[in-house]
Amino acid sequence: MQKLLAEGLGTAFLLIAVVGSGIMGAALSDGNVAVALLANAIATGCMLYAIITTLGPISGAHFNPAVTLAFWLRGEIDSLLALKYVAVQIFGGILGVWAAHLMFDLNILQLSTTGRSGVSQWFSEGLATFGLLFVIFGGLRSRPEAVPALVALYITGAYWFTSSTSFANPAVTIARGFSDTFAGIMPSHVPMFIVMQIVGVGVAALVLPRLFAKGPT
Amino acid sequence: MQKLLAEGLGTAFLLIAVVGSGIMGAALSDGNVAVALLANAIATGCMLYAIITTLGPISGAHFNPAVTLAFWLRGEIDSLLALKYVAVQIFGGILGVWAAHLMFDLNILQLSTTGRSGVSQWFSEGLATFGLLFVIFGGLRSRPEAVPALVALYITGAYWFTSSTSFANPAVTIARGFSDTFAGIMPSHVPMFIVMQIVGVGVAALVLPRLFAKGPT
Amino acid sequence: MQKLLAEGLGTAFLLIAVVGSGIMGAALSDGNVAVALLANAIATGCMLYAIITTLGPISGAHFNPAVTLAFWLRGEIDSLLALKYVAVQIFGGILGVWAAHLMFDLNILQLSTTGRSGVSQWFSEGLATFGLLFVIFGGLRSRPEAVPALVALYITGAYWFTSSTSFANPAVTIARGFSDTFAGIMPSHVPMFIVMQIVGVGVAALVLPRLFAKGPT
Amino acid sequence: MQKLLAEGLGTAFLLIAVVGSGIMGAALSDGNVAVALLANAIATGCMLYAIITTLGPISGAHFNPAVTLAFWLRGEIDSLLALKYVAVQIFGGILGVWAAHLMFDLNILQLSTTGRSGVSQWFSEGLATFGLLFVIFGGLRSRPEAVPALVALYITGAYWFTSSTSFANPAVTIARGFSDTFAGIMPSHVPMFIVMQIVGVGVAALVLPRLFAKGPT
Repeated sequence: MQKLLAEGLGTAFLLIAVVGSGIMGAALSDGNVAVALLANAIATGCMLYAIITTLGPISGAHFNPAVTLAFWLRGEIDSLLALKYVAVQIFGGILGVWAAHLMFDLNILQLSTTGRSGVSQWFSEGLATFGLLFVIFGGLRSRPEAVPALVALYITGAYWFTSSTSFANPAVTIARGFSDTFAGIMPSHVPMFIVMQIVGVGVAALVLPRLFAKGPT
Repeated sequence: MQKLLAEGLGTAFLLIAVVGSGIMGAALSDGNVAVALLANAIATGCMLYAIITTLGPISGAHFNPAVTLAFWLRGEIDSLLALKYVAVQIFGGILGVWAAHLMFDLNILQLSTTGRSGVSQWFSEGLATFGLLFVIFGGLRSRPEAVPALVALYITGAYWFTSSTSFANPAVTIARGFSDTFAGIMPSHVPMFIVMQIVGVGVAALVLPRLFAKGPT
Repeated sequence: MQKLLAEGLGTAFLLIAVVGSGIMGAALSDGNVAVALLANAIATGCMLYAIITTLGPISGAHFNPAVTLAFWLRGEIDSLLALKYVAVQIFGGILGVWAAHLMFDLNILQLSTTGRSGVSQWFSEGLATFGLLFVIFGGLRSRPEAVPALVALYITGAYWFTSSTSFANPAVTIARGFSDTFAGIMPSHVPMFIVMQIVGVGVAALVLPRLFAKGPT
Repeated sequence: MQKLLAEGLGTAFLLIAVVGSGIMGAALSDGNVAVALLANAIATGCMLYAIITTLGPISGAHFNPAVTLAFWLRGEIDSLLALKYVAVQIFGGILGVWAAHLMFDLNILQLSTTGRSGVSQWFSEGLATFGLLFVIFGGLRSRPEAVPALVALYITGAYWFTSSTSFANPAVTIARGFSDTFAGIMPSHVPMFIVMQIVGVGVAALVLPRLFAKGPT
């Protein structure tokens, strides 16, 4: 129960940061989208550091069905708990979006009209998710206490080096479908993002055990 | 006495950073408010890291009546010392604002004319204060040495993901009433901010003990 | 084999960050090159922290023939492995550039037309490479666990304080020859950059052992 | 000898970062001074982290006559070595400025024409230097391994919250007199900056021992 509260609250905070800072950045940057995205990326990274550090010892700090799937594939979380994690992540994410709308005096219920589609963005999502799992499992192997900083910095950078701005998280993707603001994604474009995120998990499941194997090389 | 000096000086430094960088940012950013806010947020985060790291072992590094109230509710600070903390925080904060005015060649005595009001900003303050206590008490549980970075990064991000730019601190709110610059808040709008910050403390007092409970779950 | 995979994948990720964030920054910054370079520098630093932390324990996290050369001069890597490292670094780097092009829907195969030449830029590359080795070997001496942050922050800063934006890496220089985007360098200007990077390694090999000597001074 | 090499080289690197990133920022920011100053502040902070981490165990990583003076007042460095430190700091700083000019294809020998004067800037320098010593001696007391991050972040913030952009260092002040670029200061305005930096050292010598005293309070 404590674990589920942690996953739900953490994912809510994550979406508050993503959507809220997107709204603020777009409102203040006077049309300079790069400045808005810089604020968006920095605020997201700051929040990721905060929620992973504080909630990691409680729930593992997934906040992301792709991460939960990856742990499940490694046999490190049982199936029932994994399903509950995914449910509260999605639920918490949507609540976070609504909280952001409330903070910025917008209609609570929205559907995004921002198109995010095409082969290049899909490839971006696969690569971004692979990279996220790379830093998580690489960090757990080499220096577990660095994982909060690793994830935070990786995502801050990934906003810039992928054309999709690296959602890399199905719960985040679904939740951002409910916000017609800077960070939104049209609901009809959500499924392909999630498909490619799962592809990223699959590639990671094949490559990372080899890369991070311990023992004689 | 050493503790009170630490709380007063630390809060003064905090307000120097908040108000000073706001003045500088607004002066140089040529009307691009997002760039000014970015400088404001980064400078505040830098200072928070500095004062919490250096003064934490002395006074606990509250610099914030909401934080002192939260520790008092947990029975970790006695009532008299808590009242003294709040007094020097407010006093130090106002001195910090005046020092910033002096550094930028402005009239020392000012009252802000910047309106910061409305349900969405009030909700922001409640949520921002809840989040601040969440990272403090979560960090103290999971990794105490990370608390300076946690608070610094949380607030840097919170400048962006709340519509009020996250005052989250009654002493800071009162002090910023005395500055008619970028970071100011009209004195008549101060009380509701403080009310909502106290509401945030109350919600945190209800939710966090459950979330961060130790023992079998 | 695991080491070579680590060097190749890490260098690929590095180029994805450098080239990808350059494309994104240039596209969004509306002609304000400083904002684009800020995003470019931050994204590169974030990625460097991620790949050095995760892959350091596996391959040493060189991702840079100049670094491999410096370790070889100190007798800390044998000649054959060093050659293999350099080969996979170059190969991985080029793959990373192509992945970035794919993510941004650009032609995969490109040659840069951006001139980067002249005495001042050449001097910059020598100094930037010397400085990189300075932080690596100084960090290994004083605080090995800080090396990822040291390299990441040094390069983030060096984007700004050198006129060449601090390539400081022959594999990165070659790979950026294959991208006609923000981060590109005309292939005919590549060799002199590499020559100067090697000069930087040579100066470091002379100066650093004296500077970082242990024992009575 | 090793110590003096460390102080000289470190201060040279510091000025390379300050002056070089100032030139680059001003050149690229298209008149938006806030963006130039942001790059300047970030690059300086990055370099400070690098040189203090790597050279701290060798020379103590002062790079600043005000810091050397403060250690001398505490009896932690003997008079002759202190004088040598100050000499190589000034010498290294000027070399660093010249290296920056060389990297950006400017005349090596310059004198600044940028006025930086007036009571508010003088007060800023005194306060900035006091604050610098506050984080150094506070950090040495509470968490010595955090000193590189403390100084780096404090100065990054102080660029913004003081009207003088926080030189806080006589060697840096003298060296910046030799650069007619973004970071320069007219030579005739140098002495008062240094006077106020020394005043900051004096106030710190009075206040900090009390604030950071150990033992029963």
